[in-house]
Amino acid sequence: MALIVQKFGGSSVADAARVANVANRVVETARSGNRVVVVVSAQGDTTDDLIEKAAEINPDASKREMDMLLSSGEQISIALLAMAIEKLGHPVVSLTGWQAGFKTNNVYGNARINTIDTERIQAELDRKNIVVVAGFQGLNKYDDITTLGRGGSDTSAVAIAAALHADKCEIYTDVDGVYTADPRIVKDAKKLSEITYDEMLELASLGANVLHNRSVEMAKKYNVKLEVKSSFEKIDGTVVKEVCKMEKMLIRGVTRDNDVARIAVIGVENTPGIAFRIFSALAKENINVDMILQSVGRNGKKDIAFTVTKAHKDETLAVIDGLKEQLNFEEVNCRDNLSKVSIVGAGMVTNPGVAAKMFEALFAADINIHMIATSEIKVSVLINVNNAERAVQVIHDKFNV
Amino acid sequence: MALIVQKFGGSSVADAARVANVANRVVETARSGNRVVVVVSAQGDTTDDLIEKAAEINPDASKREMDMLLSSGEQISIALLAMAIEKLGHPVVSLTGWQAGFKTNNVYGNARINTIDTERIQAELDRKNIVVVAGFQGLNKYDDITTLGRGGSDTSAVAIAAALHADKCEIYTDVDGVYTADPRIVKDAKKLSEITYDEMLELASLGANVLHNRSVEMAKKYNVKLEVKSSFEKIDGTVVKEVCKMEKMLIRGVTRDNDVARIAVIGVENTPGIAFRIFSALAKENINVDMILQSVGRNGKKDIAFTVTKAHKDETLAVIDGLKEQLNFEEVNCRDNLSKVSIVGAGMVTNPGVAAKMFEALFAADINIHMIATSEIKVSVLINVNNAERAVQVIHDKFNV
Repeated sequence: MALIVQKFGGSSVADAARVANVANRVVETARSGNRVVVVVSAQGDTTDDLIEKAAEINPDASKREMDMLLSSGEQISIALLAMAIEKLGHPVVSLTGWQAGFKTNNVYGNARINTIDTERIQAELDRKNIVVVAGFQGLNKYDDITTLGRGGSDTSAVAIAAALHADKCEIYTDVDGVYTADPRIVKDAKKLSEITYDEMLELASLGANVLHNRSVEMAKKYNVKLEVKSSFEKIDGTVVKEVCKMEKMLIRGVTRDNDVARIAVIGVENTPGIAFRIFSALAKENINVDMILQSVGRNGKKDIAFTVTKAHKDETLAVIDGLKEQLNFEEVNCRDNLSKVSIVGAGMVTNPGVAAKMFEALFAADINIHMIATSEIKVSVLINVNNAERAVQVIHDKFNV
Repeated sequence: MALIVQKFGGSSVADAARVANVANRVVETARSGNRVVVVVSAQGDTTDDLIEKAAEINPDASKREMDMLLSSGEQISIALLAMAIEKLGHPVVSLTGWQAGFKTNNVYGNARINTIDTERIQAELDRKNIVVVAGFQGLNKYDDITTLGRGGSDTSAVAIAAALHADKCEIYTDVDGVYTADPRIVKDAKKLSEITYDEMLELASLGANVLHNRSVEMAKKYNVKLEVKSSFEKIDGTVVKEVCKMEKMLIRGVTRDNDVARIAVIGVENTPGIAFRIFSALAKENINVDMILQSVGRNGKKDIAFTVTKAHKDETLAVIDGLKEQLNFEEVNCRDNLSKVSIVGAGMVTNPGVAAKMFEALFAADINIHMIATSEIKVSVLINVNNAERAVQVIHDKFNV
């Protein structure tokens, strides 16, 4: 008898008909001889509606009270899903985050799960219940409700799967799996049957909005077998695991990310400690830096360029400006009409020439490259944003994925 | 430094403006040098909306899951009120029923409070916080959320006031106090400045929809000083306590209740045990009987008449029908176009002639009485429903309250 954790997002339980649909899938899994734990998010727009209500009353409300407010959303959806399962005649019990044993740290609004005390869930499973658990929430050491921040419900599901040593954690979403490129851009994009944790992590951070990185990291750490599936169609999804058979693909996917601003600090002195001073100053302001490029020094001067998200652009420029005397640079320039296009694949590291093949595709399409960054399983280039969709298409064609 | 418990109902926190209004009143009380615990219900129609959602999914949902669902309503309102209080710059913390230490029995949907573990509330008060507590809810021994049923938030407030030995428990409502008669019927009805617990209990059960009996019973048991006040106007309300100065009033109020069905069992044998058989059979079906009248026996036969709520009429007739052979009665008749009009006053017991004065008023108005019931502090009569409003007026006039 397998133990399966299933997670359904907010749009999957947005109305009564969809709740009934989810109940059917869950009960079907249980009646096929599995023990089932279901993690659900708040219904559709509930969270946004609650945020709006709060903003009307106090735009600067404390995060503690926001968590108290928002956690009610999942409490509603677990109760409704449990009722729909009751209607199908299967024993069921709903549990809030604190009832399910989620203990978190004290960071309201963006808490991390410390432990899950699975006693209650285990007892309910032993009573043959389907256990419906509120995602996105837990309890801190003050017995206050906390929420987990972005991607929280995925993380809840993976954490439960890890704590219960579940056989599988199925993440049901609007899409039916992970694709080699965004199907809205590349018509012949293919769904992957398998992908490794590391590849999934790269894809997630490169703009594939399927799984949140936190949940993938946790799945990798505890070796939880993940599957991304469609809430609406009954077809196989994409399995995320440690090792995949590599098939014949060199790369798993092509992505683009338009939320990029490039800052270039031109003509700093070519002395040690420059990079340290820039990036430690940015880290102190909690600004995440993505690609970094340092030119080879010339005439005792060098250039340092890097990318941040557009939301951090102004703050970054202010930080750099504050370092003007220290760094003694000539000028700073900034561009935000760029896109980062990347290829990802664990096969890359053992296949020389993958990056060259990507550059060749871009050259043939007359697309200029502004910056390049590579890792063992990823190559990213910065190009003009108006070339981005075409770049994804020609790279996808070139690799024939 | 006094400790005051304030309770605000759903209509008092129905929207952002009303939440802000409540926050103002609460903070004002705190800044006048009091420690304050606030109990709130779910906003306006939230509970009805949630019930509707549930009905759409499963009209026969379990009471456990209904409680999980409905308790989210108060969780939303405590968070919003706390945010509004934060905005006014006063330290505040919101607590759900389980965080506030409410332990109940296991009757989902209609739970009774067993104990309140006040440790958390006390600690928050010691930290100078205003403590906002979710009414209507608690936790049973399985760590499941329960709700307290009708009048639950009033009961929560009184229970906290009792557990904390609060100096006063203020119940804020749509009306500004307890009146000698319904002001919509009797134009010169007067607001009472004081009323005893027993009088309030009689008035509540006779149709004055100000306080629920459960909360008054609890206030009487633990000697909690209650005050019924207006959420909207800043004027004195009505204080409910053990002993009142009697002023010159013989009676505290006149009420009417149209939700009455009278069943008469005609011509049963005049032998012992008849009343026992009828009323134990009704009790077994959880049918509450109000007024009971047994005629003096004649020719070995007697009549037994009693009243139930209209909702119980058909069920009651079915129970009586099932006793036909045992009781050997001649016929059963039933009327539901009646109204119960009552006078209440603790002064009654020591003032002979109060009942006679009431009957005189009705006689002068040519209103026929079908049934009479009396207690130490109450006289009730059953009359035709189309005479009810006039009866309340002439009795009110007669006693010059």
